[in-house]
Amino acid sequence: MSSPINFRYVALADEIQNNILKGIFTPGEKLPSLRKLHNQLGLSVSTVHQAYIELEKRGRVEAKEKSGFYVKALNKNPLSKPVPEKVVTKPCRVVVNDLAETIITDLQCDDILQLGAAIASKELMPLKQLSRIMKSMPADTLQDHFSNYDLCAGNLALREELSKKMLGNACSISTQDIITTNGCLEAVTLCLRAVANPGDTILVESPVFHCFLQLIEDLNLYVIEIPGCPEEGIDPKAFEKTISSNKIKACLLNSNFQNPLGSVMSKENKAAIIHMAQKYNIPIIEDDIYGDLFFGDKRPTTFKSLDKKGMVLYCSSFSKALAPGLRTGWTVPGIFKNTVIRMKLNTAISTPGINQAVVARFVKTGAFDRHLRQLRNKLKNQASAMAIAVSKYFPSDTQITFPKGGMFIWIVLNKKIDSMEIYQRAYQKKISILPGTICSSTDRYKNCLRINCGIKWSQRLEDGIKTIGQIIKNLL
Amino acid sequence: MSSPINFRYVALADEIQNNILKGIFTPGEKLPSLRKLHNQLGLSVSTVHQAYIELEKRGRVEAKEKSGFYVKALNKNPLSKPVPEKVVTKPCRVVVNDLAETIITDLQCDDILQLGAAIASKELMPLKQLSRIMKSMPADTLQDHFSNYDLCAGNLALREELSKKMLGNACSISTQDIITTNGCLEAVTLCLRAVANPGDTILVESPVFHCFLQLIEDLNLYVIEIPGCPEEGIDPKAFEKTISSNKIKACLLNSNFQNPLGSVMSKENKAAIIHMAQKYNIPIIEDDIYGDLFFGDKRPTTFKSLDKKGMVLYCSSFSKALAPGLRTGWTVPGIFKNTVIRMKLNTAISTPGINQAVVARFVKTGAFDRHLRQLRNKLKNQASAMAIAVSKYFPSDTQITFPKGGMFIWIVLNKKIDSMEIYQRAYQKKISILPGTICSSTDRYKNCLRINCGIKWSQRLEDGIKTIGQIIKNLL
Repeated sequence: MSSPINFRYVALADEIQNNILKGIFTPGEKLPSLRKLHNQLGLSVSTVHQAYIELEKRGRVEAKEKSGFYVKALNKNPLSKPVPEKVVTKPCRVVVNDLAETIITDLQCDDILQLGAAIASKELMPLKQLSRIMKSMPADTLQDHFSNYDLCAGNLALREELSKKMLGNACSISTQDIITTNGCLEAVTLCLRAVANPGDTILVESPVFHCFLQLIEDLNLYVIEIPGCPEEGIDPKAFEKTISSNKIKACLLNSNFQNPLGSVMSKENKAAIIHMAQKYNIPIIEDDIYGDLFFGDKRPTTFKSLDKKGMVLYCSSFSKALAPGLRTGWTVPGIFKNTVIRMKLNTAISTPGINQAVVARFVKTGAFDRHLRQLRNKLKNQASAMAIAVSKYFPSDTQITFPKGGMFIWIVLNKKIDSMEIYQRAYQKKISILPGTICSSTDRYKNCLRINCGIKWSQRLEDGIKTIGQIIKNLL
Repeated sequence: MSSPINFRYVALADEIQNNILKGIFTPGEKLPSLRKLHNQLGLSVSTVHQAYIELEKRGRVEAKEKSGFYVKALNKNPLSKPVPEKVVTKPCRVVVNDLAETIITDLQCDDILQLGAAIASKELMPLKQLSRIMKSMPADTLQDHFSNYDLCAGNLALREELSKKMLGNACSISTQDIITTNGCLEAVTLCLRAVANPGDTILVESPVFHCFLQLIEDLNLYVIEIPGCPEEGIDPKAFEKTISSNKIKACLLNSNFQNPLGSVMSKENKAAIIHMAQKYNIPIIEDDIYGDLFFGDKRPTTFKSLDKKGMVLYCSSFSKALAPGLRTGWTVPGIFKNTVIRMKLNTAISTPGINQAVVARFVKTGAFDRHLRQLRNKLKNQASAMAIAVSKYFPSDTQITFPKGGMFIWIVLNKKIDSMEIYQRAYQKKISILPGTICSSTDRYKNCLRINCGIKWSQRLEDGIKTIGQIIKNLL
């Protein structure tokens, strides 16, 4: 099955599929005729036909009699994009912790199909390479890492790699600007504590990553939520209206592939938001943890790269793309650096050096970039398979937006549905989902779900989606 | 030099030295005559004589003509114990961070003689064994640790070992009661955040570990300091008076070998303090990080072992006795467990699994207990050498209390001395010390120093103490 001829039709099918996923061919669009592609690509008509048949098998296209091949809609009625409701935003207290606690405890059970998590499966990660790096560390290097508190700012080798990596994101960041952390969440915690005091109000995009809400609750802060568009994130006009009419102490935003929406703000919108935030002297804590996992051609831009005043506190980690268990994150807190490092010192002294050293070596060899290229492709295909399964098994009024990156799909169901009921019923069948209820301090997303696309596609996964679809249909 | 006869005199010298350090023989006391020990122990007079000569070389005893051997005083005038001043205690805001920041940044320079730190030197740690354990971990175990977030409560194997270890401290603690952390300071941070809100007042023993003060400042809390006695720690009567006349939200106490005093509360005093705290419904955050490093025969007791209501939040770590760089600590937060685990989840998700697994394997083999026995002995001898050097090179009105465990000596100087000046001058000579100034929110300990005894004794160390002594003499 791996002769050159067969390979050609598979390669063509892959290429067309990528174009569908990138949105170059859109649902319902007619694909080029066999003859046209034959002329254009110099492939035989039969090879092109085989490619279309392959795509039909994959559920990507459908043949219409005497008309040709069409990009398959993800559902019979193409899914509409959810529109952010027009709601009055005002600061409010958060009380999601008790609910979130139950859900997260449930997530830590082994035999659960983890559709509620935001984690890529083991098979997608370069674990052998990482374990070889750790095992091949010279004994005296290990001993140095064990016997000393690492620098509070973090392992220098890792900060050097991060500095180079940030350069790729159009940020000129020196090693002195970077502080490594125990994952991205410690970075966000330290930055929040550095810029805000109890009683202050934090602006977030809504629906929002539930841990942000929990953290805001724990730190005795208030939250103000601006509903985000699943494509474009926060609207700069809504942003300006909110910050001009409320006392906002800081913004806490996922700049790229927002959790849970998957939205990406355009560079122009980011620039507009930075501009306005700086006008009102409001720092932006930027969580870019999914930024490397873009499905398109180019990494989306960061707030940090547009920040001229040091008012962006950039946060990220290797947890989503490499190894969550190594707990290696970092922050570039701009003018707040001294406060952030002091807070890190006073709560943790330092981060384990060995874990950082392993990641630094992996990145330095160039293996991380190679791995990312593969991972992005795999995640995109998994997200696509997931979207197809959802459109197949969920009720026809289900709305999803195909993400432009990251590792989950946000699903809007019929208003009558309570996602907590889906959560409970699915959990009894050993499947987890993330109910929209915990993604807001309001009940605005009660009828929504976030589904993890990080797990390698399998029959078990398809069965899981089918089961959830059935649960939803039973609830209607 | 290792013939049985030579061994006998060294063993005898060691035994007598231990009795001096334990206070069985006190400074100035006449030691038993050669003949008496000869009769009592069945050793030759010559062996006993050799032992005394050895002790003379070590600076422990001195021969007085025609009188015999005497325990050498640490100074010409035996050092008096500092007496806690009678001061009015009231809650106050803390502002030590800026000062502490400078000092700690300085501490991270490589070529500094680290007398200001609280860290044991590499040679004292079983680093080869730890690195062998890490290197011999099966590749798939490593990969599991890399690819998964560890349980928020922590690695189960480590919690099992901790549960057994706590049993040795007379605490019956199950694995479910334990939460592992990124060192002891994360444990303390989480516990403080779990029991207190901004504006609340925390009771500490004074002088106090500067990081506690910094944390209290960062968390917008108030502090109330009860001066501790360098032998016995907090006086239960002073404690009762303070908690009955102030609104105290929690106590944050080093139960054993308090940092920086080195004090240990007796079991009776601990019981009295627990009793009163519970009467007023005040939780005690117990930092027992130095508890394993006792110089006497028996581990001192913990508050936790006397706690019947779950109101003690016990915290400790492997940083002082094993490997600070592995950042492996833990807490047993009693009835506050759910809040503490939620706060850990919301700020860190989890602690790196591999680091915990390495420590768990080391402890499981029994190697940790064997290591502790050796380490305690070495630390005791180093503390003793340090005390002798201080008495030799510091002005004669210097006061120290020989610690009963832990890894530092607290030194009280002439009232005219400002420890910040010593700090600055010593730093220019590449020696760090911990100035008493940062160990209080008051200026009560301006004329005090904390000196690290964790470093293996050497000429460089003796020269360092001599230099500090000279600096102090110049300041007078």
